Amino acid sequence: MRVRKDWPRRMMLAASLIALMTTPTLAKQAPVENTISQFTLGNGMQVVVIPDHRAPIVTHMVWYKIGSADEPPGKSGIAHFFEHLMFKATSNHPAGALDQAVADIGGNDNAFTSYDFTAFHETVPPSALGQMMGFEADRMRNLVLSDEAVATERDVIMEERRSRIDNDPQAQLDEAVNATLYMNQPYRIPVIGWMQEIEQLNRVDAKAFYDRYYAPNNAVLIVAGDVDAEAVRKLAEEYYGKVPRGPDLPPRVRPKEPEKTTARSVTLADARVSVPNFSMQWVVPSYNTAKSGEAEALDLLGEILGGGSRSRLYQELVVKQGIAASVGAGFQGRALDDTVFAAYATPRGTAKLADVEKAVGIEIEKIARDGVSTDELERAKNRYIRSMIFARDRQDSMANIYGNVLTTGGTIKDVEEWPERIRKVGADEVKAAAQRYLLLDKVVTGYLLPKAEN
Amino acid sequence: MRVRKDWPRRMMLAASLIALMTTPTLAKQAPVENTISQFTLGNGMQVVVIPDHRAPIVTHMVWYKIGSADEPPGKSGIAHFFEHLMFKATSNHPAGALDQAVADIGGNDNAFTSYDFTAFHETVPPSALGQMMGFEADRMRNLVLSDEAVATERDVIMEERRSRIDNDPQAQLDEAVNATLYMNQPYRIPVIGWMQEIEQLNRVDAKAFYDRYYAPNNAVLIVAGDVDAEAVRKLAEEYYGKVPRGPDLPPRVRPKEPEKTTARSVTLADARVSVPNFSMQWVVPSYNTAKSGEAEALDLLGEILGGGSRSRLYQELVVKQGIAASVGAGFQGRALDDTVFAAYATPRGTAKLADVEKAVGIEIEKIARDGVSTDELERAKNRYIRSMIFARDRQDSMANIYGNVLTTGGTIKDVEEWPERIRKVGADEVKAAAQRYLLLDKVVTGYLLPKAEN
Repeated sequence: MRVRKDWPRRMMLAASLIALMTTPTLAKQAPVENTISQFTLGNGMQVVVIPDHRAPIVTHMVWYKIGSADEPPGKSGIAHFFEHLMFKATSNHPAGALDQAVADIGGNDNAFTSYDFTAFHETVPPSALGQMMGFEADRMRNLVLSDEAVATERDVIMEERRSRIDNDPQAQLDEAVNATLYMNQPYRIPVIGWMQEIEQLNRVDAKAFYDRYYAPNNAVLIVAGDVDAEAVRKLAEEYYGKVPRGPDLPPRVRPKEPEKTTARSVTLADARVSVPNFSMQWVVPSYNTAKSGEAEALDLLGEILGGGSRSRLYQELVVKQGIAASVGAGFQGRALDDTVFAAYATPRGTAKLADVEKAVGIEIEKIARDGVSTDELERAKNRYIRSMIFARDRQDSMANIYGNVLTTGGTIKDVEEWPERIRKVGADEVKAAAQRYLLLDKVVTGYLLPKAEN
Repeated sequence: MRVRKDWPRRMMLAASLIALMTTPTLAKQAPVENTISQFTLGNGMQVVVIPDHRAPIVTHMVWYKIGSADEPPGKSGIAHFFEHLMFKATSNHPAGALDQAVADIGGNDNAFTSYDFTAFHETVPPSALGQMMGFEADRMRNLVLSDEAVATERDVIMEERRSRIDNDPQAQLDEAVNATLYMNQPYRIPVIGWMQEIEQLNRVDAKAFYDRYYAPNNAVLIVAGDVDAEAVRKLAEEYYGKVPRGPDLPPRVRPKEPEKTTARSVTLADARVSVPNFSMQWVVPSYNTAKSGEAEALDLLGEILGGGSRSRLYQELVVKQGIAASVGAGFQGRALDDTVFAAYATPRGTAKLADVEKAVGIEIEKIARDGVSTDELERAKNRYIRSMIFARDRQDSMANIYGNVLTTGGTIKDVEEWPERIRKVGADEVKAAAQRYLLLDKVVTGYLLPKAEN
């Protein structure tokens, strides 16, 4: 059975949190000279080409501006379900033909679904780019949605949910924290869907979803690698250009969060847990919803508070006090709607969870009260921008960043100017962000605990 | 400014909890001989007549099968908003004409909105029944929804929200508890609506809502009082019979709750709070969603655990231990979807909230582990059924019970057989309900705390 990687934007485990939080992006002053091109096909499909000639490889991605947060009420999981269905037969190819073709040429392919997007991608030699476009253009419109294909894949997804969520205490907790954190926005609903709703998904739902959202005018094509823009344009016109435009979609306006008035907690105790942990989370503006400079300040606040071993939390709780085995904080900035800022820790040895939580709270209150020093901010900017530059060195991360930004309300210019915008953030803005958003009486705290023996 | 009574089914304060939880209903063996009639008009309007000849008064109610839980995403508050708009001008009457007519004859009128229904009612002398029907039939279809009327009433409702929710710590907490308790069902959204969504409601939304839901085939007429069925039928046909049928509506199928995996808490500390309190809440089946007998068992579980001064919680925490000033528990059974079972307490004197909470938890675990005695159950049934009989003595409560049941999936037979069904519940069923639903590791606890001085 093929493994699909989902990409739930909310990060749950400490490790994945760090990884995602510091996900770097393309920097203007990067070492390799790339000129990003973009253009739009006649049917509305947006195309971005990111040349990278260091190796004879190309990353081909189709991002659809449809994610789980766009699902109708009661149909949770259908975006992710549809990601799976896209690997079924089309009127031109049997199921598995794309996977087989990619495997035959030693490439790889996969797909992922998040709150704001669903993406399909292949990494192959440049000579196979046209073939990949042929497959993607074909399944964009020619899927055969039989009752049988739908029923089979629904079983697969229910099993996926059982194994990945229902059998994993951390995943169960994360799901409940998320449903608690967001009081109104659809990010509260798990990307994979609630089991009782997955069970009900059917061919009629799938067909309606496909016809509405899978169309060139709702897609972004990202091609990164050993290609040039003109060649990509010719291929894109040849393969994607003939796919008819889909319906015009209304703006992606979703329910918004109300003002928070309470502190909330979510606790899961399970016999399988040996080391407890906790996370503190807040709903904050995203790059798409923040006023100018605020999301950048939140990124730097995350970096200073908990971005790696130079951060305040690490230095205070791990190095100085020695009460935490791991600790971190960060901002998940790229989202169409308001998003999450989180801090988390795992106690070390015999340290009590409550003491570690208190120590994290003290660091948060300190930064909100006293702000950050110019030096500290400068170092954080350097670290942050350096991580962006490292990112550009990876073809797939470049493609991911552009796809992510372009499907969450951003533009190519936003990606290009990001380092400069980070540079411009003042210490007062970081302090203001902490003061405004990291309120201990408005936090949602998740606790994963070992189950006490009875 | 007229005062409208909303009827959010979720009950928040101890006092209102007791009041609602023991809301009694009509008993078959009641002292006054009433024969309930029901019939349906040609346009689909359901009519229930409850004769009560003890006084020359009649209660006239129109219940619409539309409540806040039926609202589209992002349009929270529109059901309640529409309740207000129904008091605006129609093409036949200026705004205020109904209120004035009712006041002129010494009656009273009002309206309320809940998750599952919106109801309008007048209490007047029987001679005015036709006039009332004329007004209700008129505003069912002839409202003038001007931009101005909509904008004015929206301001009224925003002010209502400010004064009733945003300026009241208990109401703020209750709202957050509710949004936390239900992870997926729309009962999580406040009846009055989230402020940021109320602000956006407009004439187009209102018109669409009116045309869809305000129609005789989506309404139940309840007439209780000094009238007979034939006279009511004639009047109903005369006034309501000519209102054209509205669109056929799909079944009221709403998103369902997922399995709970965590214990959660919601805390609000406010300087205006002098005495703290807490509530423990669970999502449980309603009379409409429970398997046979289970909702009745939950009603008796509420009665035994916390229904008044003979209850276990009262006897243990108030009388014996003296640590609680008030305590209670109960089941809000009448709802279209799964509903709430709650227990709550306020500490007495210097007793600590945590100790009171622990004591409530002990009583809950005891009832789940050891069950209830036959004697105790018998006494609880007697108390419960007695309260039903008392209820029948009030014309307005009779009318309310029928309206509530008929708009939440129930039938007249359900009301009539309710006492018998309560009689049939066995001690094992009460224990099973406690065991299955009142789980301390799946509870949502709300804490209202005084704000510590800084």
